[in-house]
Amino acid sequence: MARLKLKLQLYCGDEIAMGPGKAALLRAIARTGSISAAGRELGMSYRRAWLLVDTMNRCFAEPLVEGRSGSGARVTAAGEAALADYLALAERAEHAADGAAFERLEKMIRTHPD
Amino acid sequence: MARLKLKLQLYCGDEIAMGPGKAALLRAIARTGSISAAGRELGMSYRRAWLLVDTMNRCFAEPLVEGRSGSGARVTAAGEAALADYLALAERAEHAADGAAFERLEKMIRTHPD
Repeated sequence: MARLKLKLQLYCGDEIAMGPGKAALLRAIARTGSISAAGRELGMSYRRAWLLVDTMNRCFAEPLVEGRSGSGARVTAAGEAALADYLALAERAEHAADGAAFERLEKMIRTHPD
Repeated sequence: MARLKLKLQLYCGDEIAMGPGKAALLRAIARTGSISAAGRELGMSYRRAWLLVDTMNRCFAEPLVEGRSGSGARVTAAGEAALADYLALAERAEHAADGAAFERLEKMIRTHPD
């Protein structure tokens, strides 16, 4: 399954409310208690991490992350719920994609481009 | 379901062998018999369309598209098979994503960012 990548994105207008990068960032914020530490873990600048958090918070009815750089940050209950549902959604979709059609495609695709 | 976007990408090394854009291009080439006409339909430059075709052809064991700009292009049997399997895969994944977790997320996400 190494070569199948499923990117599940939930849109809010033209912006992405939740996707693989934002889910990973939420997880890292929950673990580290800090937007900058979470960004560092994911190889993201603080600015980039902050922008992703800002987009999530503007896209959801309730903020998913609270707090600011100086005093640390925490994932809210809404954030935990959104993350859990997103991961469940992505797992179901990935599981569904793992079938005969995928196996046929996998056989047709080279390991590396010609 | 308007706000869920599922992007299913099949990788070949670091390149994307098949994804939503390439699948749409294959369909348009099959319909128009031309890379440039297909690109135009999708609002893509000829160069961009050609590069996507080139990537597909280098990523698959057999070429998915044959022919060149002057004399038209056609989708090969391998191309038809890859497209059908990709669409089946994407449909299964989308169907799986349409559940309770998605409904909860949909309720949490605003129509437009704040």
